[in-house]
Order: sequence, then structure tokens, then C-alpha cells
Amino acid sequence: MDLEKIDSPKFLKNYDTNEMTELAEEVRSFLINKLSETGGHLGPNLGVVELTIVLHKIFDSPKDKFIWDVGHQAYVHKILTGRASKFDTLRKYKGLCGFPKRNESVHDVWETGHSSTSLSAAMGMAAARDMKGTDESVVAVIGDGALTGGMALEALNHIGHEQKDMLVILNDNEMSIAPNVGALHNVLGRLRTAGKYHKAKEELEYLLKKIPAFGGALASTAERVKDALKYLLVSGIFFEELGFTYLGPVDGHDIEALMENIKYAKKTKGPVLIHVLTKKGKGYHPAENDEIGVWHGVSPYKIEAGEQIKPKVAAPGYSKVVSETVRKLAEDDDRISVITPAMTVGSKWEGFEKQFPERLFDVGIAEQHATTMAAGLATQELKPVLSIYSTFLQRAYDQLVHDVCRQNLNVFIAIDRSGLVGADGETHQGVFDVSFLRHMPNMVLMMAKDENELQHMVYTSLQYNQGPIAVRYPRGNGIGAQMDKELKEIPIGTWEVLREGKDVALLSFGPTLQDLLKAAEILEKEGISARVINARFIKPLDELMMAELMEEGIPMLTVEEAILQGGFGSAVLEYVNDSGYQHGTIQRMGIPDAYIEHGSVNELLKEIGLTPNDIAAKAKKMIPAKQKRA
Amino acid sequence: MDLEKIDSPKFLKNYDTNEMTELAEEVRSFLINKLSETGGHLGPNLGVVELTIVLHKIFDSPKDKFIWDVGHQAYVHKILTGRASKFDTLRKYKGLCGFPKRNESVHDVWETGHSSTSLSAAMGMAAARDMKGTDESVVAVIGDGALTGGMALEALNHIGHEQKDMLVILNDNEMSIAPNVGALHNVLGRLRTAGKYHKAKEELEYLLKKIPAFGGALASTAERVKDALKYLLVSGIFFEELGFTYLGPVDGHDIEALMENIKYAKKTKGPVLIHVLTKKGKGYHPAENDEIGVWHGVSPYKIEAGEQIKPKVAAPGYSKVVSETVRKLAEDDDRISVITPAMTVGSKWEGFEKQFPERLFDVGIAEQHATTMAAGLATQELKPVLSIYSTFLQRAYDQLVHDVCRQNLNVFIAIDRSGLVGADGETHQGVFDVSFLRHMPNMVLMMAKDENELQHMVYTSLQYNQGPIAVRYPRGNGIGAQMDKELKEIPIGTWEVLREGKDVALLSFGPTLQDLLKAAEILEKEGISARVINARFIKPLDELMMAELMEEGIPMLTVEEAILQGGFGSAVLEYVNDSGYQHGTIQRMGIPDAYIEHGSVNELLKEIGLTPNDIAAKAKKMIPAKQKRA
Repeated sequence: MDLEKIDSPKFLKNYDTNEMTELAEEVRSFLINKLSETGGHLGPNLGVVELTIVLHKIFDSPKDKFIWDVGHQAYVHKILTGRASKFDTLRKYKGLCGFPKRNESVHDVWETGHSSTSLSAAMGMAAARDMKGTDESVVAVIGDGALTGGMALEALNHIGHEQKDMLVILNDNEMSIAPNVGALHNVLGRLRTAGKYHKAKEELEYLLKKIPAFGGALASTAERVKDALKYLLVSGIFFEELGFTYLGPVDGHDIEALMENIKYAKKTKGPVLIHVLTKKGKGYHPAENDEIGVWHGVSPYKIEAGEQIKPKVAAPGYSKVVSETVRKLAEDDDRISVITPAMTVGSKWEGFEKQFPERLFDVGIAEQHATTMAAGLATQELKPVLSIYSTFLQRAYDQLVHDVCRQNLNVFIAIDRSGLVGADGETHQGVFDVSFLRHMPNMVLMMAKDENELQHMVYTSLQYNQGPIAVRYPRGNGIGAQMDKELKEIPIGTWEVLREGKDVALLSFGPTLQDLLKAAEILEKEGISARVINARFIKPLDELMMAELMEEGIPMLTVEEAILQGGFGSAVLEYVNDSGYQHGTIQRMGIPDAYIEHGSVNELLKEIGLTPNDIAAKAKKMIPAKQKRA
Repeated sequence: MDLEKIDSPKFLKNYDTNEMTELAEEVRSFLINKLSETGGHLGPNLGVVELTIVLHKIFDSPKDKFIWDVGHQAYVHKILTGRASKFDTLRKYKGLCGFPKRNESVHDVWETGHSSTSLSAAMGMAAARDMKGTDESVVAVIGDGALTGGMALEALNHIGHEQKDMLVILNDNEMSIAPNVGALHNVLGRLRTAGKYHKAKEELEYLLKKIPAFGGALASTAERVKDALKYLLVSGIFFEELGFTYLGPVDGHDIEALMENIKYAKKTKGPVLIHVLTKKGKGYHPAENDEIGVWHGVSPYKIEAGEQIKPKVAAPGYSKVVSETVRKLAEDDDRISVITPAMTVGSKWEGFEKQFPERLFDVGIAEQHATTMAAGLATQELKPVLSIYSTFLQRAYDQLVHDVCRQNLNVFIAIDRSGLVGADGETHQGVFDVSFLRHMPNMVLMMAKDENELQHMVYTSLQYNQGPIAVRYPRGNGIGAQMDKELKEIPIGTWEVLREGKDVALLSFGPTLQDLLKAAEILEKEGISARVINARFIKPLDELMMAELMEEGIPMLTVEEAILQGGFGSAVLEYVNDSGYQHGTIQRMGIPDAYIEHGSVNELLKEIGLTPNDIAAKAKKMIPAKQKRA
């Protein structure tokens, strides 16, 4: 069928197994073809083709609610709910979002991006249904990786207690983004191998009836006892203990098995968990054989060759600069270890892990635990590196305030993907960290102008022993800066002048400084002499340089790829105001008080008004007429 | 013995069971006596007397590390480590802290206050030990309530996977602060009743050997099979599945049983969980029979009478005003429900629960789940009230940013215990919420000047349907304001002038406004006319009034019982600066960039410099000499 003609999933009601099987093939080809042009989350979506078709066959969306945990596996859902024709715009500016989006479709009832939220949302929707007395079904689809997130476990505990009718599909692909870790993973592993015992439950019940205390005589065959015991040892007792009816494991690519189990679950009272085994990348050979997750989220690729087309870049990635610098320092300092919540690959720790396997702790999707574990290491005089994406560090806000900063422990926080991240969009923009870290006592916060300064900041952070210290760095590759051979310490709270100028001072940090330099050139052409300051310490500010700037009375323009409320510009304002300096010409540029959707970083900067031209225009307006020399 | 003469727990090494039993009695009397004068966490500490003695007998603190989850049960530990003589100053300004404190003693290796951090800290310390190649033991003591916190579950998952040697004492008193909830609680309940089968494990092993596949013939007695099966059904399989060796349940007041199990655990490789059953308030009759937790944390009390001495107050508590207003509104609006993470009693929801049991969701200690569940309810057009203490809302930072504010859902966040909380100290001060909520897009944030305005704010919040809205309110009782009979909506983003004045404008929110009024009187005596503005909307600001203030050119002094960085004063600065207003005389007062320890709120305000005199002095300095009329 022509997938682009689908306007609602209702057509599935008349489909039989063969038609659904055929549809699955069409959806797979569609995804493989479309994503080869746009990029996107290929592996996860190829894994849930049959599952999504069967869910839409059995349930009635949007009356029934589907909640896609993380949400990057909702492409098939988007196709079946009338959005196939928009896949050319996937993850592009103003185009189809890579995650569920309520303003895209009535079938998207819950927006995701961060993991492990689905069970709580489902509990809320089930509670709402029961309060309203309606009868819709609520279905959450959660991966085995996301299940280890603390809030998912909190929700399991509450749902098992409340016994609300709801269906949890545990989409177990044996690998979340990177190979999964944790004891729960082992639990699931035992369940996976338990398929042949899945009928043992009835046998156990039979057996129990035979036991005198349960109303009968002991079963006479050893075989039966063995099966019963094995069932107990290997079945879903973990989930049953938590109050769920456990079904599975089910082959997630077997439409009939899915139909049978999901229909059964729909009729079952109370919370049901169906354990579905899927294969990421199913149907596309290179993605099926992906051991480390390179086909999880992909750039455009050549279908036949199975090769992703990556733009050639001369400069190293920021993540790699951080991980390599830490690795080298760890050779001479055995106090250094790295803690990552499931981002060994994402933040490029593979080299470190290979060299120091016992000093790399991948704790799974568990930012809270990661942060407090780092604090625990630091109490023992060690040097933990806590490596977390900016957007996921939000999950550890309290652990930073309460455990790390309050105890003033030497934790080095390497904040990957700070600032705008582009195609992943509003759930993933790393734009709150400046504001939320700046108000934590004892915190030192930096950002480097380029990859060379970044390596020095990593060194500085691991030398520092006065408390927590954080370095934010953006997604992507460096600017091609010359890398110094020798690492050096950057004095805490010192800025540097990148370009001299006397009419206006432009202040920023990170690669945004490149835009400030461009703005200075634009201003230069208009006869305005702009100073560019690398405010590499966001906290503490460089008080000496601030004093000079105030003394001089030069107008100051702060620019940050971070939310304005309470951000770096506010820090400058607070400082200047507290100092009693009377000059009023300070202006701030940054992310406004709103969520920024997906698009390329340059498109987003243009939308926000943070391009070199915008900066130059703003600076120009700040200069008193008499000073303008043009 | 004289407890005040203890300087180290070493004396316990020579103690036998009888001596430990006697010591336990002495510690109990000491606690009951001392706390009758000072108040403090009576119930939890009476529950862990024997446990703490046995831990110090078997392990060698501070070489071996004790980590007390939450930490309010560490009084016995403090007594045994040489701090008995300081109990007269418990929880008082500059006195003994109610929680573990690293600068008090080398025996306090980890500071707590918020729950569920102990397992992550223990994992960090165990990892540090193994990296260093030393051999100390790491022991975490965690309650059954704290175990449901997501980060504790994340840690269980990781610890079970890593198999580091460590001991987790699950202190199961069947009641955390309030009656416990959640499926895990049910798991523990089944375990509690399983005592008589605790030897069945060996029997099972024996049985398995007899089964052909396991190397023997089937056991011949039905009794043996029954025990084995019951063991499987009721034992610690939940924890065993997660990779722990489970021991217990053990009577936590039986010194010999504790000795036996803890000694055994110390020798066992890998992570061990001992399930210890304790009775909160053990040894003090009124506390032992406490069903709802009033003897958990106590004010001073009369020992014989079993009565707590509560200061008589005429005004209702802020929590009660919120809960009663919500309850009344819920009578006519069945969309309203309340979600609380284990604070039904703490935030006074008992009346609501009694009237609407099906609309009160106590989710256990699980702030993340609570917040996202509220978001789920809001997607279904309902009106959830998310009731959380300010300090614990920190745990839900990401859920607020990512789920509630980003989806712009109608969640009413009732933030209890905002501002300084007093005796609970630095882990519990609710001073970060203004800064972290203010930078979340779509958020409306208020605080009421008194209990009457608070009831109107509750009404306003439940009428509002443009997105998330939050009201912060302090611990304790109102100021005795007249309560209006009719509830009314307060227009969003409007302030009010509480007192007219033309020399200086004092801006604040909440009960702090009382101090501003006092400051205005002090200024009046010096001939300075101070306006007092109730800036009841922290976000959005009252732009009309701000424009008037700027137009007028009146100096502005902002005062907040919240951290200054990025707070309300910064919002005013940002607004004034962005508007291009040139008047420089804005000053901010608030909590400095530091953690504030325990003490009475008034002592702390004095230390910080936020008394009416401080405010008046600061305001006075802001007024240009020519304007002073004194």
C-alpha cells in the first residue's frame, strides 16, 4: 500500500496476519529508504515495526493511549497515524519531530525525549481514566535500558501497588543505546532463556494442588517438580513480586504471538507487563549486526554499502578531546575514574574503557546514582569524572545540590552536548545548565573557546581540589585549533581578551566566541572597535577584569547559548549591580524564556537572533552616538 | 556507664551480650530524656539502638564506613562516637546537627538529609576501596521507605551488577514517616512473615541435589518440598534476583541474632542485604504505639504524660490552609486530585484523604514519579495538585523542565516548607526553588504574604488553565490574618502596594513582607518614607508596576528568603536592565552563595543579615543624601 496515503490507523482493523506481515515489510523499506536521506533513529524503529502494527490493530488510538518511552522509536507510529508524507523533513527545521509531539497529531498523547518517563505518565493517565469513569486502555512501551532509570522503578513500585489496569510493553532488545548494564539486565537475561518453561506456571499450580498443605498429594514425577522449580527460578517473578502480571517473553517479530499476548493482556485486570524480545535494526543487515550502537541514531547512509555518510572534519570532536585527555592523565594518576550513565559510546569513552576497564563505571541510565556515586568516590580522596550530557544532568540536580556541592567534594563534571544540540530538539537542548549550576554554592563552571583550551580545562579540573568543578562542551567537532603538546592549568576565575577594542566589550564563552569575533569584524567595518572577551569561567567571574571593565566604563554585551534567566549575563548584571557601578550599558543576548524546537544549530541561532550579524547590530546600538566613529 | 565519657566506640570490643543489652537500655533512657528537652527524631533513633551498638561492635569505624540513609537515625551513632555531651545543643544554632556531619566527627563519613542516597554513596566508597586496594567494610543503613526512592533502586541495580563487597542493612520498621506504600512494601510484607522458613534455603539445596537433573533422586518427603516451595515464594528472591545475598528477616532488637547475621554478612563476598525488623520508638510507650508518625520527629515532650509540648498558636499552619482550600474546592470539582511523595501527614492532607481517598495518591518517596504522574493526569484535562516540600522538589527538576513545563501542562505545584526551615538545617532549606523554577519556561511562581492570600492563591492556581503554576509557602503557622469567606482569583502577574512611601521601594514576597513592614517603620522614625510592595508573583513580574517604579526613579530594594544567584532580585535586575532604564539604585538582599546550617529561622536570618534592622539599614544607604529628610 501507499504508506503516504494512510490518514488513520483504522485501516488495520480489517487486516489479517498476512496483510500485517506485508505491511511490516513496506514500513521497513520505507524507513530504510527515507532515513538513508535524512538520518534518524534507524535501529530502534526497525525493531518495533510488528509491535507497533499490532498495537494499532488491537487498540483504538487516540482513544486508547500509547506512550512511547524516550520516543525515538515512534516513527512507525507516526507512519500509521498519517505522517508518512512528512518523513522527508524528519528532524529538520520546522519539519517532522524525531519524537512524539502533541501538536503534530492527536495520536501523540505524551511527549518524550528523556528516558524512563512513560510509566509515570501512564499511571497518571490510568488514574485520570478511573477518576473520569471512562474505559480507554493505557499502553506504555519502554525499553530495557530505560527501565533502569530511577523514575521508571519508582513508577513500577507505585503501579504494582495501585493495581490500575494498564499495559506495559517491555521492549527488550538486549541493548539500549550501548550494551546494557545492571542487575535488572541479568534478570531479563534469565527471562530470555526461559521461553521453554513458559508453560510451567500451570504445571506448578497443578503441582501445588497435589501437595497436602495445598490440597492434594505430592506430584509423582521428578520432571514436574523440576519444571516448577525452574519456572520459579527463571520466570518473571521479579515483576510478579512487584504486582504485575508477567507475560512472555514473546518474539517481537512474530505477529501472531504478539496478537495473542496483547489481546490476552487487554482482557487482564490490573497491570500487565509483556516482555517482548525485539531485534534492533531488524531487516537491515548492517543495523542488525550492530554491536555498539552506531546504527542507533544515524546520519544519512548508502543503503547497499551499509555506510553512513559522515561529513569529513579535520578537527577532533569535543567529547573525544575530553575523553582522551582524561585517559592520558589517568595513566599517571590512578585516582582518576570515569562514571557514565549509559554514554560510554556517546561521550567517547571507549578508549578509556579499553585501557582502564576497572576504572570506567557505566551505571546504565541512572544519572542520580551516577552523581552520588561520584560523590562517594570523592569522599575517599579519589578523582571521579562524572560524564553526563547537559540535558540529562537535569536529572541529577538534587544530587549536585545536596551531595556534591553541599559536601564540597572534588567531582569533575564533564558536561557533554551543552548548548543547542540541533536535530534532537527541545527535549535535548543543553541550555539550562548555566542557570542551574550557577546558583549552586561551591560550584566552579567553565566552558572552553576551542578544543585546545578544552584539554587545558580538563587538566585544570583534575588538578583542582577545592570542590566540584564542571566543564561544559558542545556537541560536535572543534574549530580546528592547534593542540598544545603540554597541558597547563588555567587559573580559576580568569578570563582572557581575545581581541582588543575600546568601544564595546563582547563577552561570551565556548565556541560562541567565534561568532563574537565575526561580529567584531563586522563592527570594525563600521568603524567600531569591539573587544572580545573569553569569559571562560562562568562561575566565578573574573573579578579583576570585571573591575577594569567597570572602571573603564565600556559598554558590555554578554552572549550565551543558554537560557537568559539567571544565566551568565545575569551573573554579570548581579556583579556589576552589587559593586555599585553606575554605568547602565550592559546588554544580554541568549536563549529566551521558551523551549527551542529542532533544526540545525545555525537555523536555530538565526531564529533566536544569535548570529554574528545580530550580535553586531545589538552591540552597535549600545554605543553612545558620540563614540561612533563611522 | 556514663555515656558522656565515651570518646570512641572501641570500648565495645570487650562487651558481651549482657553488657550490650545494658548499654542499649542506657542509650534509650538518655535519648528519651534528652529529646524531651530538645525535640528531635525520637522514633527512628529508639528503633536502631541495638543495631547501631552491634554495628560498632563488629566493625571498626572510622576505618569501616557507616552510611546512614536520610541520617535522622544517627543519634545512637553520635552517642557511641563521643558526642553524648553535646545533645543539649541538638539541632540548635551552632549545636549538634540532627544529621551526620563530616566536620563533627571522623566517624561521619557521609552527610545525609534527603533520602535514598546511601546506596550510591556506598557503591562509590566500595569502588574507591577496590581501586585503592584497601580492605575496609562499607555499610549502608537504609529504611524501607527510602528504598522506594528512584536513586536507591538505580543503585541496587548497579550494585547487584558490580558485585562489590558491601553490606546493606534494610531497616524495615513497617512505617517510614507515614505508612509506607508501593509494591516493594508488599514484597517486604511477605518477607516479614517468612521468618519460620528462613532455614528452608539449605533444605532447598538439599532437595535440588536429590532431583535427578541436579545430581540426585527426588526428596521423599512432601514436607521438604513444601518448605522449599514456600521459601521460593516468600523469601528474599526479589533481592536475590538483583544479585544480593539476602539474609533475614532478623529481629533488630535481638542482639544475638544481629551479631550472628552481621558477622556472617561481613564474611560473605559480594553485596549482602540484611533485612532487619525494628520497631520505631522501641522502649518508649507513646512512640511505640504511634500509628501515624507523630513521634517520628518531635517537639519537646513530657515523658510521663507522653505529651508533646507544642507552642500555642492562634493562626492556622500554611500547609493546613493549602490542604483545606484544596479539599473544599474538590467538593465541587472532581477533576482535582492530590499527589504527594510520602508527605500525606507532613503536608496535612489527612482531611483530604479521608474525604476523597480515591483522589489522594501517596506515591512513596518518589518525587520524580509524582511529578510526571501529575503531568500525565494533566494531559487528560484533570487538575492535579503536586504537593512537595521545596527541598524535595529538587529531585524533580528534570521532570518539571522536561515533562510539566515543556508540555505546558496544568499542574498546580504546592511547594511546602519554602525558605529557611530551621532545625533540619542545610539539607532541608528550601532556598533554591525560586532560582530553579524561574528559569523554566511557562512556569508561573507565587508566594503569599499571609494565610489569607495563600487561600486565594490556591484558588487562583486551580482556576488557571494556561500551564504550570506554583505556590511556595513556608513551614509553620500563619501570621494570624483574617480569613476571607469568599475565595477570589488574583490576576496573574499583579503585585500590590502594602504600604505607600516615596523614598525607597522595598519588594518581597511571602511572610518576609512582615519584616519589610517593620523595616519601613524603622525607616519612618528616621524620616524615610518606604513603600512596601507585595511582589506576590515572582514570575511573571508585574510589568505595569515595574514600569511605574522605573518611571518614578525610586530606589528599589529586593529581599528574598532564597538564594540570590538567579533569584527574584535578579529577575528585577534583568527586567530593569532589558528595559533600558538607567537608574542604578537597585539592591538585592537574600541568601548568599553558601549553604545555611541549622538553627532557628530567626537566628539564621540574623546570621545572614535579613532582619528588619538589616533591611532598614540597607535601604537607608540607597537613598541619595539630598532626599534624606531626617
